[in-house]
Amino acid sequence: MTSRKLISIDGMGGDNAPGVVIDGLAAFASSHPAFGFILHGDEQRLRPLVEAHAGLPARVEFRHTDKTIAMDEKPSQALRPKGRNSSMWNAVEAVRAHEAVAAVSAGNTGALMAISKLALRTVEGLHRPALVGSWPTRSGVAAVLDLGADITADATQLVEFAIMGVAFARAVHHKPRPSVALLNIGSEDLKGHDAVREAARLLRAADLDLDFRGFVEGADISEGAVDVVVTDGFTGNVALKTAEGVAKMVTDLLREALTSSTRGKLGAAIAMPALRSFRDRLDPRRVNGAVFLGLNGVVVKSHGGADAVGFRHAIEVAADMGESRFSAEISAQLARLKTEELPFPDAPVNEETAK
Amino acid sequence: MTSRKLISIDGMGGDNAPGVVIDGLAAFASSHPAFGFILHGDEQRLRPLVEAHAGLPARVEFRHTDKTIAMDEKPSQALRPKGRNSSMWNAVEAVRAHEAVAAVSAGNTGALMAISKLALRTVEGLHRPALVGSWPTRSGVAAVLDLGADITADATQLVEFAIMGVAFARAVHHKPRPSVALLNIGSEDLKGHDAVREAARLLRAADLDLDFRGFVEGADISEGAVDVVVTDGFTGNVALKTAEGVAKMVTDLLREALTSSTRGKLGAAIAMPALRSFRDRLDPRRVNGAVFLGLNGVVVKSHGGADAVGFRHAIEVAADMGESRFSAEISAQLARLKTEELPFPDAPVNEETAK
Repeated sequence: MTSRKLISIDGMGGDNAPGVVIDGLAAFASSHPAFGFILHGDEQRLRPLVEAHAGLPARVEFRHTDKTIAMDEKPSQALRPKGRNSSMWNAVEAVRAHEAVAAVSAGNTGALMAISKLALRTVEGLHRPALVGSWPTRSGVAAVLDLGADITADATQLVEFAIMGVAFARAVHHKPRPSVALLNIGSEDLKGHDAVREAARLLRAADLDLDFRGFVEGADISEGAVDVVVTDGFTGNVALKTAEGVAKMVTDLLREALTSSTRGKLGAAIAMPALRSFRDRLDPRRVNGAVFLGLNGVVVKSHGGADAVGFRHAIEVAADMGESRFSAEISAQLARLKTEELPFPDAPVNEETAK
Repeated sequence: MTSRKLISIDGMGGDNAPGVVIDGLAAFASSHPAFGFILHGDEQRLRPLVEAHAGLPARVEFRHTDKTIAMDEKPSQALRPKGRNSSMWNAVEAVRAHEAVAAVSAGNTGALMAISKLALRTVEGLHRPALVGSWPTRSGVAAVLDLGADITADATQLVEFAIMGVAFARAVHHKPRPSVALLNIGSEDLKGHDAVREAARLLRAADLDLDFRGFVEGADISEGAVDVVVTDGFTGNVALKTAEGVAKMVTDLLREALTSSTRGKLGAAIAMPALRSFRDRLDPRRVNGAVFLGLNGVVVKSHGGADAVGFRHAIEVAADMGESRFSAEISAQLARLKTEELPFPDAPVNEETAK
């Protein structure tokens, strides 16, 4: 197993753990023979689930712990002694110890973020990590960040988000040269916050290897106008949840309309292949797996309610990130940025948060 | 005509003016006999369009001007001498002069906002106007503000937005006691900006006549969790445009799926009544008409691309606002708020913007 790249899995995180976790793991493993797994959690519960999949036990190393972090636990509690040695903590710790190339958990987002920041720390030269997610668009998928690792972002941080988002889109969305833009509002006389305008100036002025396209508006995200959309964590989180809410409302209303009459049901039955392809295009499972970017190690957050298909996709994101040149690309871009930062003495450098 | 309430109409604003404007006006007029209209623009073009509708000419007073404001004109240009006496300017001016109870324009948003602020000024005691819009929800409609009158909002302004949004929902959505919440993000350890948290504290502490429900997340807007959602103009604008983009993408993908095969087309034809009712639930025309709240007079902004049905709805919003106790309600709530502001010396009071 030593020749295999290992992925560290929180076996106990998520609404439907551990069953869904192991089913997703088995599905991923069967199509990715080059990977092995470190599985954290209650071995008595996990082992029989793993053994139900032929060939899987030989690729799984169990790390028993009976501690778990509840979905509603406060992040601060997760960092206390009782959170240490939990399945989530240990999953991240295996990345810190360089045993695994990436960790995946469907557990408590706030706790996972807090543990990841503490264990892995922010990459030297970056001010802050960011949470990036994949967003279904008309033409495929876009990366959007920050989705809520923090609530504000200054110009320098937005520039760093752009760099990280592009590296993510290359690694996970397999786009050779992702385009990137800053999320802004469209009204003529209001061209956004100072931070957004200054970030645009920096991205244009800096000698970065980026296809920077300026500003986009909210409607451009789904339109697929660019591959990477950059914003602060408050706006990004609101935009993501608003979009999820609208998509859910629209598809629910469609279902209600089609099932509320015999004619509707008949038409839907006949059009079922078309309706299925429509549903598949919007399937949130195929974009499951958000990543905490900017830490010294890869941590992927699966949706807590993901099923096996969704969890498998989150592991794929982890594998793609783990196999990518993500860290090297970030370092190279940051080195280019540093030389460009000098003319802008107002760019905040906070030693507290830079570590 | 003196006994009729008058609505002031910019006959030349919008992508399809003046044809769509007059068709929308005629549709509104036929079902609202109590209203008359002041119509601003090129009388030679407008008069024959009005005369094509039986009974309408007697209810329309023409105010000729050959000046118009282009859709792509900068707001600052609209305020210069060349913008004065434009159809948009004159439409707002008739409200300032108390000739009309409200003005409606489908023209340039930034110009309309700039003209309205200059001509009508902010209500005494309010810090800032806000742009409010109607948002389709699962159960009906919600009011969301600010949609971009400004890009930031402090705690006091968010409280004022809550007061205005509730008065709007009562006047236009005909809800007797609208519930209101602040838009926030859901992550456990990040409970939003200081402004949002302080606004929540103020709304709980103040002796206001409000059904305040605390925080909602982006997904709760479409869910119809509350009747009024309050946020700053940057976040509100991004959320609105993101939602519009998602709704358009989803319905476009559905159309593509249903028209890409014979079976899909056949099924859709059979299910057409259901698909129509689905489409009607999401029809953006039935929520057309955003209002600049907090000015000494009612100005309604119709979507620039609205058709006659949409423009008619924007006039209905103007009529509802014009007939409502909106101003009296705002004044009463502000009076209650003033006495509550005293314990919070950090609440900003800016004499410059308060006028």
